[in-house]
Amino acid sequence: MNHADWVRGELEKLSKSLGFQYTPREEIEDRLTRLRSGMEREGMEAFLVVQKMDYYYLSGTTQDGLLFVPLEGKPLLIVRREIERARVESPLEEVLEFKSVRELPSLIRNHWGRLPQTLGLELDVLPVRDYFRYQDLFPGTRFADASPVIRDVRKIKSPFEIELMRVAGEIGKKVYQEARGILKEAMTEIEFGGLLEAAAKRYGHEGLLRVRSLNYEAYTWHVLSGPSGGIVSQSDSPMGGLGLSPAFPVGASLRIMRAHEPILVDFGTCYHGYQADETRMFSLGEMGKKFVDAYNACREIHDAVLEETRPGADCEAIFQKSLRLAEQLGYSDSYLGPPGLQTRFIAHGIGLELNELPFLAQGQSYPLEEGMTFAVEPKIVFPGEGSVGFENTVVVTWGGYEILTPLEQEIFQV
Amino acid sequence: MNHADWVRGELEKLSKSLGFQYTPREEIEDRLTRLRSGMEREGMEAFLVVQKMDYYYLSGTTQDGLLFVPLEGKPLLIVRREIERARVESPLEEVLEFKSVRELPSLIRNHWGRLPQTLGLELDVLPVRDYFRYQDLFPGTRFADASPVIRDVRKIKSPFEIELMRVAGEIGKKVYQEARGILKEAMTEIEFGGLLEAAAKRYGHEGLLRVRSLNYEAYTWHVLSGPSGGIVSQSDSPMGGLGLSPAFPVGASLRIMRAHEPILVDFGTCYHGYQADETRMFSLGEMGKKFVDAYNACREIHDAVLEETRPGADCEAIFQKSLRLAEQLGYSDSYLGPPGLQTRFIAHGIGLELNELPFLAQGQSYPLEEGMTFAVEPKIVFPGEGSVGFENTVVVTWGGYEILTPLEQEIFQV
Repeated sequence: MNHADWVRGELEKLSKSLGFQYTPREEIEDRLTRLRSGMEREGMEAFLVVQKMDYYYLSGTTQDGLLFVPLEGKPLLIVRREIERARVESPLEEVLEFKSVRELPSLIRNHWGRLPQTLGLELDVLPVRDYFRYQDLFPGTRFADASPVIRDVRKIKSPFEIELMRVAGEIGKKVYQEARGILKEAMTEIEFGGLLEAAAKRYGHEGLLRVRSLNYEAYTWHVLSGPSGGIVSQSDSPMGGLGLSPAFPVGASLRIMRAHEPILVDFGTCYHGYQADETRMFSLGEMGKKFVDAYNACREIHDAVLEETRPGADCEAIFQKSLRLAEQLGYSDSYLGPPGLQTRFIAHGIGLELNELPFLAQGQSYPLEEGMTFAVEPKIVFPGEGSVGFENTVVVTWGGYEILTPLEQEIFQV
Repeated sequence: MNHADWVRGELEKLSKSLGFQYTPREEIEDRLTRLRSGMEREGMEAFLVVQKMDYYYLSGTTQDGLLFVPLEGKPLLIVRREIERARVESPLEEVLEFKSVRELPSLIRNHWGRLPQTLGLELDVLPVRDYFRYQDLFPGTRFADASPVIRDVRKIKSPFEIELMRVAGEIGKKVYQEARGILKEAMTEIEFGGLLEAAAKRYGHEGLLRVRSLNYEAYTWHVLSGPSGGIVSQSDSPMGGLGLSPAFPVGASLRIMRAHEPILVDFGTCYHGYQADETRMFSLGEMGKKFVDAYNACREIHDAVLEETRPGADCEAIFQKSLRLAEQLGYSDSYLGPPGLQTRFIAHGIGLELNELPFLAQGQSYPLEEGMTFAVEPKIVFPGEGSVGFENTVVVTWGGYEILTPLEQEIFQV
């Protein structure tokens, strides 16, 4: 048997036994159709897809390669490594191997007859050096930024995608339910979180939290106890935690968690690339009244956001409503961060990445649409003492919303 | 107490109690001196550092910001979030806050008197859209690629850096020693690896594996059992494994590990950003003779590489020697990958990232230097059956080398 046949046989066997789900052909075709109407609107004759999640979204594989999508004609998937695996994973028909991007113009010419006059690239993430390379390889081509187009397509999730997010949510539910048995006195934040992560991986959680940006880094989870929860760090988040060192100053630390203090567990899960994000509070013994009250306020704000969640609702208006409610509840100084460092969003889009559209945030005035998915996460921070939060991931439905992270809402007291 | 004082007090308390190590001033000064001689050689009047690990290397902090390093005059650290934490973490004297990159020209003018005529940027990773922004903000400035300069500086590790890698190696040692008690029959690859990772985090492992590239993704570890070890995927590595889905088709899978098959554990650890990487073999009961023989061949090749390791030795020549030895030992078809998919490196530089200089590889003809650190990893792959490997991280010393991952070399049989 040659290598190609062997790899295909081996992977097909595995895809059945280990639950790999390949993106169906109709799903890819629908995505390409929506992409092309965006490309046409922007006057883009073709799009060379480089970024891993865009590439996965449009091809079904993450094998190392590039995807050429012309406005008219078949897409061409070119793969550096490993082509046989890409052929198993992607329903696209035209799949070729390449060694160097130098081959790109001739591969495109052979496939499509000529080089495009305008070529979209993901300029929000593509490195400059690669861009210069493409300029050399396509001397007569005008380049355009394709990232707004692909981000716009990706913001509406299909039933197939929502189902994968639902599975991610189910993994999260199992993890939170096991967490009560894992949390012990005298554990460090990182030990607790590490064991939660191990449990999640056992259920198929991929352990990655993808963010479309050059420098963003975090685990898929935070465990912040007592004063750790009052520390802001590095990212546009109400609290960052201490982390393990100045090289990774975010999330769980080696701090030992103590009785009665608030322990915030913000745990995201990832299944077939799709994420679900949720936050609940834990405590060893009863949590102080101040934190319980603030947690209830977070739940109230969360519910108020979902009350407004339906197609057509304005994202910024929902955020502003949450601000007013936090103020009424007496948390104007501590809502979404410590004084002076408060963030300006109550929900972020989520799917293959954590910073997808929509943002329910200041300056983001556009309507919610059916099929959008976001994580709504009211948080309240008391510097020096701790922070509390509550979070679920939801999908906007025709009639309102559906929660993709169904889980009890009470404090997890151990 | 105002917020700034409070954050500083809180972090200083923590830095003592939780073992945070801040980069000493003299360390940063030495790095800047070496950087500036590279900048001078390349005719670069200033360098705007954007990429997280370069920024950490030169400032001591990873708080969200930018670092302006002029050839002459003090560096300016500008921070978006969180400035008080950056002030605690970085020994640099000039630290200012900013909200938008629009402020950059005026901040630089105030600090340095004028804008630079030539400005270095990390064009190997900087997104095009950001580059266009800088072109608008610095209309009279010529931009140059600073990445070769900073990569060249970073390839030589100081005693401070080597000590952090040594601690990473010690964490790895503890993990491997605990691993024997963790591995059980009927476990999946991902369950075993997840528990190793949880153990490592308990000891302060940061759980990140940084690679300087747009799309590279992996855990800090592989657990590949039996036929999983024969699967190539996505990256320039002898074997990739199955992974959990087409979205993350690399590393451990949900496959149940069986008795007598080779279980390859390639586990990297990260301490204060610095990585150590090592591989050992595990088995449930005795491993088949074919794999034991191949493992011994890997050890022999590993030892042969280290025999040549000293300042002045040529990186490509060492790689070629390893190829010849693999051939003599009867592994020409399986050394460094399955037939037709063999990789062409025996060692990669390691430090803050996994793809630093040097590479002991085809086409990489340059001398080893004192203070270089690399992971040497001979691997042998039998498609459909499994793979074996052996790996340590070493530093090149005046007289030869020192192993930073001291750990028993035998097969871990359970």
